[in-house]
Amino acid sequence: MTKELFKGSIMFGPVPAVLVTTIDKEGKPNVFTVGWTGVACTHPPLVTIAVRKERLSHENISASGEFVINLTTREMLKMTDFCGCRSGRKVDKIKHFGIELEPGADIKTPSLKKSPVALECKVRSVTELGSHDLFVAEIVRNKVEKTLIDQNNTIQMGQAGLLAYCHGEYFTLSRQPIGTFGYSVARKSVRQARHQKKFQQKKVKKS
Amino acid sequence: MTKELFKGSIMFGPVPAVLVTTIDKEGKPNVFTVGWTGVACTHPPLVTIAVRKERLSHENISASGEFVINLTTREMLKMTDFCGCRSGRKVDKIKHFGIELEPGADIKTPSLKKSPVALECKVRSVTELGSHDLFVAEIVRNKVEKTLIDQNNTIQMGQAGLLAYCHGEYFTLSRQPIGTFGYSVARKSVRQARHQKKFQQKKVKKS
Repeated sequence: MTKELFKGSIMFGPVPAVLVTTIDKEGKPNVFTVGWTGVACTHPPLVTIAVRKERLSHENISASGEFVINLTTREMLKMTDFCGCRSGRKVDKIKHFGIELEPGADIKTPSLKKSPVALECKVRSVTELGSHDLFVAEIVRNKVEKTLIDQNNTIQMGQAGLLAYCHGEYFTLSRQPIGTFGYSVARKSVRQARHQKKFQQKKVKKS
Repeated sequence: MTKELFKGSIMFGPVPAVLVTTIDKEGKPNVFTVGWTGVACTHPPLVTIAVRKERLSHENISASGEFVINLTTREMLKMTDFCGCRSGRKVDKIKHFGIELEPGADIKTPSLKKSPVALECKVRSVTELGSHDLFVAEIVRNKVEKTLIDQNNTIQMGQAGLLAYCHGEYFTLSRQPIGTFGYSVARKSVRQARHQKKFQQKKVKKS
């Protein structure tokens, strides 16, 4: 391939366009969209979200020390886009969309009922970087839509129809995966065993 | 939706499965796969990669203070999976796949010729978190495949056929985007103008 050179900027993706729920000091919830999120560590399970200082959600997370990452689907596209463009200081986005919330399990912040997977997070650190502050947070509880869990207790994330964001545009994922981690180096039997093991998650209780 | 509760773990995505190139003290290149990567800040443009301490690439990046994030495509799936499973300490992955490299523009580390977009990065900080260390790095130069740049100097990332990773499986993105950032709140003319502005990148020179 022949390349053109550009000055350094964020040409990166696909990233998940997630809806992050937060609460203020009185417990009032807000929701906003975050594309600048990623995994920071497997053990302990840590994620990052980058948030502009001026955001209401920055204020909320700084005060409460917690938030929820709600994965989004193609059906949630309009809500996801809107919540990244309108501030909770001006619009009650939860009322605007009639969003249904579910109470927190291990934290006070609620999650979105419509989201197939929600990650309850407790803040570990925050670092000022420039336009954004970077929050590193531990995932303390996962909530997973029951219909994504098959008879082998395997989570079929592909069936969720997750939304992806890349360079200013939204995309969908293929319904079927095109490979499983480790497939290129494993014999078929090993690969199948690893696949089963990987997808067997420890279920703790019903919500 | 009805949810099941699980203990906190990484159920997160889609993320980009990127190939990261590094060099050792003698300048010998290595390549490894990173799914735990994300954007940390827009201005300055900062990204994160989470790397296990025992990785050869951890050693390389710590010594050189730089690396390249190479976005991957569906055609690069096997290489991407393999480079996440095999260590550069045991296999010369670049020789193994006959990978063609391109010299660095602003740094010493080369990029992958086959990658549609490569981000040259200089390390800002590293933080120990547990199984992984988190590197925060500044994107100092972008290399973009010419055929992705249309006549309006707009980068058509959707045409790259980027690879996505989610919960142990690889997926492809839809070729056509299903929305543009801001579409839910803008009139058509405004949306088009914003779209144009957003996608006009400052081109600096030809490679």
